[in-house]
Amino acid sequence: MTKDRITSILEGYKAGALDLPSALDAFKGFPTTELGYASLDTQRELRVGFPEVVYCAGKSPAQVRGIVDALLDKGCAILATRADEGHFAAVGDLEGKLVLDRVSRTIRSRRDPEAGSERRLVAVVTAGTSDIPVAEEAAVTAEACGARVDRVFDVGVAGLHRLLGRIDGIRRARVVVAVAGMEGALASVLGGLVSAPVIAVPTSVGYGASFGGLAALLAMLNGCAAGVSVVNIDNGFGAGYQAAIIARDR
Amino acid sequence: MTKDRITSILEGYKAGALDLPSALDAFKGFPTTELGYASLDTQRELRVGFPEVVYCAGKSPAQVRGIVDALLDKGCAILATRADEGHFAAVGDLEGKLVLDRVSRTIRSRRDPEAGSERRLVAVVTAGTSDIPVAEEAAVTAEACGARVDRVFDVGVAGLHRLLGRIDGIRRARVVVAVAGMEGALASVLGGLVSAPVIAVPTSVGYGASFGGLAALLAMLNGCAAGVSVVNIDNGFGAGYQAAIIARDR
Amino acid sequence: MTKDRITSILEGYKAGALDLPSALDAFKGFPTTELGYASLDTQRELRVGFPEVVYCAGKSPAQVRGIVDALLDKGCAILATRADEGHFAAVGDLEGKLVLDRVSRTIRSRRDPEAGSERRLVAVVTAGTSDIPVAEEAAVTAEACGARVDRVFDVGVAGLHRLLGRIDGIRRARVVVAVAGMEGALASVLGGLVSAPVIAVPTSVGYGASFGGLAALLAMLNGCAAGVSVVNIDNGFGAGYQAAIIARDR
Amino acid sequence: MTKDRITSILEGYKAGALDLPSALDAFKGFPTTELGYASLDTQRELRVGFPEVVYCAGKSPAQVRGIVDALLDKGCAILATRADEGHFAAVGDLEGKLVLDRVSRTIRSRRDPEAGSERRLVAVVTAGTSDIPVAEEAAVTAEACGARVDRVFDVGVAGLHRLLGRIDGIRRARVVVAVAGMEGALASVLGGLVSAPVIAVPTSVGYGASFGGLAALLAMLNGCAAGVSVVNIDNGFGAGYQAAIIARDR
Amino acid sequence: MTKDRITSILEGYKAGALDLPSALDAFKGFPTTELGYASLDTQRELRVGFPEVVYCAGKSPAQVRGIVDALLDKGCAILATRADEGHFAAVGDLEGKLVLDRVSRTIRSRRDPEAGSERRLVAVVTAGTSDIPVAEEAAVTAEACGARVDRVFDVGVAGLHRLLGRIDGIRRARVVVAVAGMEGALASVLGGLVSAPVIAVPTSVGYGASFGGLAALLAMLNGCAAGVSVVNIDNGFGAGYQAAIIARDR
Amino acid sequence: MTKDRITSILEGYKAGALDLPSALDAFKGFPTTELGYASLDTQRELRVGFPEVVYCAGKSPAQVRGIVDALLDKGCAILATRADEGHFAAVGDLEGKLVLDRVSRTIRSRRDPEAGSERRLVAVVTAGTSDIPVAEEAAVTAEACGARVDRVFDVGVAGLHRLLGRIDGIRRARVVVAVAGMEGALASVLGGLVSAPVIAVPTSVGYGASFGGLAALLAMLNGCAAGVSVVNIDNGFGAGYQAAIIARDR
Amino acid sequence: MTKDRITSILEGYKAGALDLPSALDAFKGFPTTELGYASLDTQRELRVGFPEVVYCAGKSPAQVRGIVDALLDKGCAILATRADEGHFAAVGDLEGKLVLDRVSRTIRSRRDPEAGSERRLVAVVTAGTSDIPVAEEAAVTAEACGARVDRVFDVGVAGLHRLLGRIDGIRRARVVVAVAGMEGALASVLGGLVSAPVIAVPTSVGYGASFGGLAALLAMLNGCAAGVSVVNIDNGFGAGYQAAIIARDR
Amino acid sequence: MTKDRITSILEGYKAGALDLPSALDAFKGFPTTELGYASLDTQRELRVGFPEVVYCAGKSPAQVRGIVDALLDKGCAILATRADEGHFAAVGDLEGKLVLDRVSRTIRSRRDPEAGSERRLVAVVTAGTSDIPVAEEAAVTAEACGARVDRVFDVGVAGLHRLLGRIDGIRRARVVVAVAGMEGALASVLGGLVSAPVIAVPTSVGYGASFGGLAALLAMLNGCAAGVSVVNIDNGFGAGYQAAIIARDR
Repeated sequence: MTKDRITSILEGYKAGALDLPSALDAFKGFPTTELGYASLDTQRELRVGFPEVVYCAGKSPAQVRGIVDALLDKGCAILATRADEGHFAAVGDLEGKLVLDRVSRTIRSRRDPEAGSERRLVAVVTAGTSDIPVAEEAAVTAEACGARVDRVFDVGVAGLHRLLGRIDGIRRARVVVAVAGMEGALASVLGGLVSAPVIAVPTSVGYGASFGGLAALLAMLNGCAAGVSVVNIDNGFGAGYQAAIIARDR
Repeated sequence: MTKDRITSILEGYKAGALDLPSALDAFKGFPTTELGYASLDTQRELRVGFPEVVYCAGKSPAQVRGIVDALLDKGCAILATRADEGHFAAVGDLEGKLVLDRVSRTIRSRRDPEAGSERRLVAVVTAGTSDIPVAEEAAVTAEACGARVDRVFDVGVAGLHRLLGRIDGIRRARVVVAVAGMEGALASVLGGLVSAPVIAVPTSVGYGASFGGLAALLAMLNGCAAGVSVVNIDNGFGAGYQAAIIARDR
Repeated sequence: MTKDRITSILEGYKAGALDLPSALDAFKGFPTTELGYASLDTQRELRVGFPEVVYCAGKSPAQVRGIVDALLDKGCAILATRADEGHFAAVGDLEGKLVLDRVSRTIRSRRDPEAGSERRLVAVVTAGTSDIPVAEEAAVTAEACGARVDRVFDVGVAGLHRLLGRIDGIRRARVVVAVAGMEGALASVLGGLVSAPVIAVPTSVGYGASFGGLAALLAMLNGCAAGVSVVNIDNGFGAGYQAAIIARDR
Repeated sequence: MTKDRITSILEGYKAGALDLPSALDAFKGFPTTELGYASLDTQRELRVGFPEVVYCAGKSPAQVRGIVDALLDKGCAILATRADEGHFAAVGDLEGKLVLDRVSRTIRSRRDPEAGSERRLVAVVTAGTSDIPVAEEAAVTAEACGARVDRVFDVGVAGLHRLLGRIDGIRRARVVVAVAGMEGALASVLGGLVSAPVIAVPTSVGYGASFGGLAALLAMLNGCAAGVSVVNIDNGFGAGYQAAIIARDR
Repeated sequence: MTKDRITSILEGYKAGALDLPSALDAFKGFPTTELGYASLDTQRELRVGFPEVVYCAGKSPAQVRGIVDALLDKGCAILATRADEGHFAAVGDLEGKLVLDRVSRTIRSRRDPEAGSERRLVAVVTAGTSDIPVAEEAAVTAEACGARVDRVFDVGVAGLHRLLGRIDGIRRARVVVAVAGMEGALASVLGGLVSAPVIAVPTSVGYGASFGGLAALLAMLNGCAAGVSVVNIDNGFGAGYQAAIIARDR
Repeated sequence: MTKDRITSILEGYKAGALDLPSALDAFKGFPTTELGYASLDTQRELRVGFPEVVYCAGKSPAQVRGIVDALLDKGCAILATRADEGHFAAVGDLEGKLVLDRVSRTIRSRRDPEAGSERRLVAVVTAGTSDIPVAEEAAVTAEACGARVDRVFDVGVAGLHRLLGRIDGIRRARVVVAVAGMEGALASVLGGLVSAPVIAVPTSVGYGASFGGLAALLAMLNGCAAGVSVVNIDNGFGAGYQAAIIARDR
Repeated sequence: MTKDRITSILEGYKAGALDLPSALDAFKGFPTTELGYASLDTQRELRVGFPEVVYCAGKSPAQVRGIVDALLDKGCAILATRADEGHFAAVGDLEGKLVLDRVSRTIRSRRDPEAGSERRLVAVVTAGTSDIPVAEEAAVTAEACGARVDRVFDVGVAGLHRLLGRIDGIRRARVVVAVAGMEGALASVLGGLVSAPVIAVPTSVGYGASFGGLAALLAMLNGCAAGVSVVNIDNGFGAGYQAAIIARDR
Repeated sequence: MTKDRITSILEGYKAGALDLPSALDAFKGFPTTELGYASLDTQRELRVGFPEVVYCAGKSPAQVRGIVDALLDKGCAILATRADEGHFAAVGDLEGKLVLDRVSRTIRSRRDPEAGSERRLVAVVTAGTSDIPVAEEAAVTAEACGARVDRVFDVGVAGLHRLLGRIDGIRRARVVVAVAGMEGALASVLGGLVSAPVIAVPTSVGYGASFGGLAALLAMLNGCAAGVSVVNIDNGFGAGYQAAIIARDR
C-alpha cells in the first residue's frame, strides 16, 4: 500500500467521500483478485517492478488456465514456469497470445521482439549440456523482465580452455548466471574471472553422491571466490529474475 | 480401562459373579476387535474423546473395507485418511453412508450438517494453492471432530498484504492451523500476528533444497515467534485433530 | 495496530488535530522501544496476550541488563530464558524484583504466589532426570503466563509402570507437555493415554545416534498417536508458552 | 576351513596321497560353486549353521533360477528373499518343491510341517498392519531356521492396552522381534516389558519426516530400554535369522 | 505387575483385608522409590532379570550419589555407566563396596570373583586400540550380569591375519560383541566367520567423514553377513547387556 | 591477463626487446607475490575491481601479519575478516594505519570518511540482536568497497510491525542484505516487500534443529519470494561484497 | 595450450604470417568443436592422454547421436557411458563401427582385439552379483584406455573364503578396483591384502539405511586400510579411467 | 601368509620336524607382536610394501611410546600421524632417532637425506594457506614411502592465474595430490589440466555449510573431470600413501 493510497483514503474520509467503515475497510489489504484456490497479486508489477509469476508445479491444468485468464483479463503480462504437457494443453488455444516453450518449460506472453539494451546484458553460462533446461528457464525469465541475454553453454571446468576461450564475452555482462550440477565448480571459477556479480544455480544433474544437486549447492555456497550468491537447486527462474533486477537501469 | 471398570470387576469377583480366571482375564486388556491383520480400538472415542481414525496408506483396499465394516458394525463414526482410488472403489457401494472426498483424500461418515459452534472455530490457512490438499485433510478432520473451520488459502508471505488483508478473520479463531511448504515462513509470521495457538504443518510442496518438506519443517521448528508447534510433513490429519482437541469446550 | 488506533488517527486528521505528515507517520509502525541493538515490543502483552520474552543466548550481559531495565521502566513483566552466569551477574542487584533460577536458567519477575486456577492446569512430564532443566523452563514459562503446573519427572517408557502409576494425575491436566530425549517414545505413549493435547519437547539428552536430539525430534514428529505436536529440541519455553495459551480461559 | 580339513590335507601330503601342487591348491579357498555371476557358498550350512540365503533384489529372474537350480543340485535348502513377480515366475514350475509366498516375498523349500520346539519360540510383534510384510519375512526366515514363531500384529503404542493385553504371550518367547515404522516406540516399550532379548526392525512405513524409516531406526538405536539391538530398515530377514540363532539349543 | 500380585489383591479384597480404595490404589503402579528427580525401579531385577543401571551422563554427582545410596539401601546391585571424575568423587568413600573403573567409566558393586560359566561365554572383540573403552563398558556390563568375557583387542580387518589368528577362540563364545569405529567392517567379517549371534557396536573413533561414528553405524546396519544386529554408537553397555541376556542359561 | 598485456608482449618480442624464453615466461601467469605459505593476488583490485581480502581463520597471527605487511608494501588497501585476538595483537602496532573492529572481527585500512553516494546505498537488516556481528561484517565490507550502508537491526518477523515501521527506509536502498538465524523468514518477507535484489545471509544463531544455521539456510533457499539469493551461513563478507558490486555505478 | 603452440604463434606474428588480430585470436582458447548444445574437446586425447568420454544421462538421443557423429568425423575414439535404450537406438545403424553393451550401458568403438599388456593389468572385483553392471562399466572403460582387465565377481566378505581363494590372482594386478554396495567392507579387506593401489567404487546396491549407496561410500572413505581411494557412488567409469591412468606404462 | 611359508610348513611336517599340533599352530595367523592394547603387524612392510603406520589419535602417550619402542625393537621404520603435544613429549628423548614435526603432526624415523627419484615425483597442491598442515601430512608420508615431493601451496581457483602459472611444474609429477577445503574445486580443475592420476583430499577448512569438510568431499566425489579419486576429509596420510604406491617403480 503506497503513501499515495493512504493519502487518498485519508482525504476521502476527511472530505466525507468515505464513511468510517469504508475507510477502515480500505486498510484491510491490497487489492487482490480472489479465485478461491488462488489469491492473485495483480498489482505486483506496480509494487515490485515485475509481474506476478505463476509456478505451475502442483497446480492443476484447470487452475493454471483460470489464473492465466484472470491475469490476461487484468492486462497483466504472463510468465508461468514449470509447466508440463497438461498445462501446455490447457492454454493451447491461446497460442496466438502466448509462447509455449518446452525446453525451458515456460508459458509467456508473445511480445514484439524488443531486445534489452546492452547495458542490461546478462550472461547465462552452463557447465554441461544437461544443464540447458535450467539455464533456459533463467534466460527466458530474464528476457521477460527486460534483460538481454547471452547464452554460453557446455563450458565446464573439466576442459578449462572452453571457458577461457569465451571469457571475454562473458565479461561484457552486467550479471553472470552460472548454471552447473555435479560439483558446481563453474561458479567459483567464474567468480574469480569476472568482476560482475555471479548468481549460481546448482542443478540436479548428476548421480550418486550428488544427492539431487546437494553437492553442487554446498560447493557453490562455500565457493572461495567473492561476489557469488546462490539460489535453490534447479531454480533458473529465481536466478533469471534476480539477474534482471540487478541489471535494470536505475 | 476406567476406574468404574476395575471397580465392577472387583465387585463381580467378590460377589462370585466372576470366577478367578474370568477376573484375571478381564485385566488382560481393553476390548479390541481383532481382524487378524488389525486390532481395532472400538472404545477409543470413549477413552480419548474422538473415534479411531483409519490410516489407509499401506493397507490393501480389502483391509480398509474390512476395517470400515467392523467399525460401522460397532456403530463407530468413520474417518479414513490417505485413501487412494483403490480404497475409494472398495467402499464405493457405501456412498450412502460415507463421503468420498478426493481433494482431502478422506472417507468419512455422512452426517447431518451440524456446524460446530463459533467457540470452536479453527482457521486453516495456506501459503499457496498447492498446499490445499493437506489443508483440506486438516479441515475435514477438525470438522469430523466437531470443530467449525474457516478456510483461508493462498496467502503466503511473498505478498504479505494478502495475509494482512485477512488477518482479522483469522484472529477470531480459537486455534490456527498454518499450512505451508517451501520456506514455511507463514507459521512464524502468523505466530507474531495472532494470540491463539498456531499448529504448523510443513508440506512437501517445493523442489530442490526443500528436500521433500524438510526445509519447511526445520523453519517451522525454529520459528522465532512463540505459540507455534509443529506436526509431521503433510500431516494435515494430525494438525486438524489437535486443533479440534484444543478448540473443544471443556 | 488496532482498529481503535486507526479510528483515532482518522478522527484526529479529520478534526485537524493531526496534519497529514503526522497522520502518515502514525502508520509507520507500532510503538517500539529502540535500544539500537534491540527493538522492544512493549505492547506485545497487549497485542498477543503475553509479555515479550528475552532470549539471552547470544546477547551480552550488558545488552540483557539494558533490555531488562527498559522493560521494567515500561512496567512490563520480565521473563528471560537461556541465561548464563554472566547474565545472572548483570541483574544480580535486582534480586529483590527478580527471581534468578539456575535450574531452568530463567530470570523472571518476583510476583505474589497466585496459583493459576485448576482449569488452567498443565502437566509437565519428563522421561528422565536429565530432561529436568528443559522441563523446568517449560514449567516456569507456563506459570509466568498464568498456568498452574503439575510436574511429573523420570517416568520414561523403559519402566512403563512408573508412567502408568501416575497417569491419573496427568489426565487431570488441560494440556500435557512431554519432555524426552533419546528415542522420545514418551510423547507417543502419552498421546495414546490422554485425551488432552500433548506438546512434545525433544531434548538433546543422549549420545551417538541421538545426534543432539534429532532422533527424539523425528520420533515425536512421526508419533503414531494423534493429538501430539512438537517444538524445537530443548525448547521448553516454546512448549510452556503454547501450553499456557491453550490452557487459558476464553 | 576346519581343523579337520587342514589335518586331512596335511596327512594326505605326508602319506604321499597329495603332491605339493594339490596340497597348495587345497589351501586356496573353501569349495564354492561358481556360476560366473555368483559364487555360491554351498558349505555355509556346515560352517555357520544355516543355509546360504539368496537375496533376489538386483538379480535377474534367470540368475535367481540358476542359483536355485545349483543349490537344489547340491541338496541345499532354499530360502530366497525380496522376490518379485519376475522371480516367482522364473521358479513357477518348481512349486512342488518350493513355497512361493507373496506376502513375505520369499521362495523357500517346501518341508514337512515340523514345528520348532517351544524352547525355540520367537515372538514377532508389529506396531501396525502395514508392517506385516516385513514381519512375515522375519517369521518365515526364523521358521526356515528351525524356530517356532508366535505372531502378534497391530499392537502399537498409540493404543497401549492392545500391547498390554497380549504381553503375557510375548513373554513366553526366547527372543522378541519388534517390527515398527513411524516413531518405532514399540521396541523401547517392549524392551521395558520383557526380559528376553529384543531385536528391533525399523520399517519404512510412514511419510514425511520418517525419511524412509530413518526416524524409526534412530529411535530404536536410542531406545532407553536395555536389551534391544537393531537391524537395517525393513530387514525382516536379518532379524528372523538372528532370532533363530539366539533361540537355537546349544 | 505379575499374575500373583493381581491374584493376591483380588483375594485380599474378597477376604475383606483390602477395602476398595486400597485395592484400587494397588493397581496404580509398580512400587518405585521416588527421589523427586528420579523414580527408581527397585524391582527391575525381579521383573526383567537384571538390576536397574544408572546412566550418569547428565546427572549431577549429588544425584548419582543419592541414587546409589537408595539402591544400596534396597539391597540392589550397583552398575553405573558414563561416570566422570565428579561422579567418581561423589562415591569415593564407598570404595570398599564399589569398584571405580576409569577405563570403562563404570561404578559397580565389588563382588567375590565368581566367574561366569563357560556356557555363558561372551567374546568382546575390537578393531583398534582406541575402541577399548567402549569394549570395556561392554565387558564389565556383561560380567555384572553373570557372563564370562573373553577380550580380543586390536584385530581390525586392515590386517586380516590378526583376526584369523584368533578366530578359534572367538568361535567358542555364545555371543560375539564386535566393537569398531571408522568403517566398522569388523562386524561383517566376524558375521561371516562365526555362527554365534554378533552384536555390533559402532564407535565414534575416526575423523572427517566418520561423522562421529555414523559411518561405522551405517556400515554395520548394512552388513552383508547375516546374524548381526547393532546398538547405538559407543553403546558398550547396551551390547554387553544384550549379550548377557542371550548367553544366560534358560 | 589483459589484451593490452598480450599485445605488449607480442610487440616486445617482434621488436626484439624480448627473447623467446622471456616471452614464454611472460605467459606463465599473472604477477603474484609469493610468501611461501601464501600466494597474494596484488593485482586483484585491478582485475576484478576490489582488493584481495584476507580470511584470517586458520592462519597464524604471524602469517596474517606477513600478508598485511606485503599488501601494505604494494600499496594495497587492507580488509581482513574473521580476525581473533591473536590476529588483532599481531597488527596492534599498525593501529595508526588500520582499524581493529572487534564487533565485525575485521581489520581494515583507516581511510578518510568519504561516504558512498546515495546511489550506492545498501541496507543491512537483521532479524535479531544476536545477528549483529554477521551484519557488521557485511556492512564493513560493503563500506570498504565504496558503498553507503543503512543499518536496520532487530526487526524480525515475530513482531512484523517493527519491520513494517522501517520498510520505507529499506526501500531506498539499491540492494538489501537480510541477515537472520533461526527460521530465516526475514529474507522471504523482505523479498516480497522491496523491489531491489535481496542477498540473504543465514546465521548460526539458534539451537536444536537450527543445526548451526542449516534451517535458516534451507528456508532462505526455498523462499517463495523472487529476487532473493543466498550466501553461506554467517558469510557477512560475501553478502557485503556482492552488495557493493551490485550497487556500484557503471 | 602447449609451449609449442605459443612458440608457433609468436614466430608467426614475428614473421608477419599472423597479423595482430589473428594472433590475439589464437590465444582465445583451445580448439573445440561447437555443436551449440555441446562444446566438444576434440584434442583431449592429445592433452590428457585419453579420449573425451560422452556421459549420456540427461542428453537426448539426438544430442548423443550428434556428438558421436562429430567425434567420428574428427577420427576420435568413442566411449559413451550411461546409455539407455533411446541412446542405443539412436546409434543402432552404426553397429558396424560401435559396440552397444547393455550390461555396462556403454557405446564404444569396435576395435581389433588387442589385449593390454600384463604390466597394465587391472583387477575388477565385486562383492556381489548385483554390483556387476557398475563393475563392467569400470572394466570396459579401463579396456578402452588400453588396460588388461581381470574380473573377479561375487567375492564379498560375508564368505571370506571366496575372496581368499582368489586373492593370488588379484595380487598380480597393478591396480585393484573394488566394487561393493551395502556396507562396502570389501575395499578395506582388499586394502589390507594387496600392495597395489585400490580404487573403491561404492554402489547403490542395498536398501534401507544404505541410503542409495551412502553407507558404502562412507565406509570406504573411512577404511582403516591404507592405499584405498574412492570415487562417486556407481561411478564405474571414474574408477576404470583412473585405474587405466595408473596402470599405463610411463 | 606366503606360498613359501605354507610349503615350508608342509615340508617340515612331512620331514617330521614339525609335529601335528605345531603345524596346525602355524596356520593360526601371521606373526604379530602383542602389546595387550595393540596387535602390531611387524611384517606389514614385507607384505604390503610399506611399514605399519601408527595413528596416534585416541591412543595415550604411553601407548604410543610402547608401540614406538616395540617397532624400533623389531627394526621397523617409524611413521606416526596425528600426534599431539602429549605424544611428542612421550618420545622426546628419542629425538636423535626420530623427527618430531609439529606442522604435519607426525613422528618419523630420522633418515639420511635420500631423495626419491624423479620418476617417483608426487605433486602436493593446496588451494589455500590453511590447507598446509593436511598437505604436509601427505607430503611427509609420501616421502617416508620413498617418493619425491613437489609442494605447490595456495593456488586455489578463486585466482586461477596462480594455478595456471605453476601448472607446468605440476604436470611433471607421476601423481598429483590436490588438497582443498571450502568448495574443493581445485580437484576438478586440476583433473582437467593434468594427465596424471589426481588424489583429492577434502579438508575441514571452511565454516557454515562446509559442514566440517562435507561440501568439499561431495564436490570432489562429483567432479566432472575424470582421473580423480578421493580420500577421507583431512586424510593427508591416506593420499600420500596411495600416491607413493602409485608412483613407485615396478
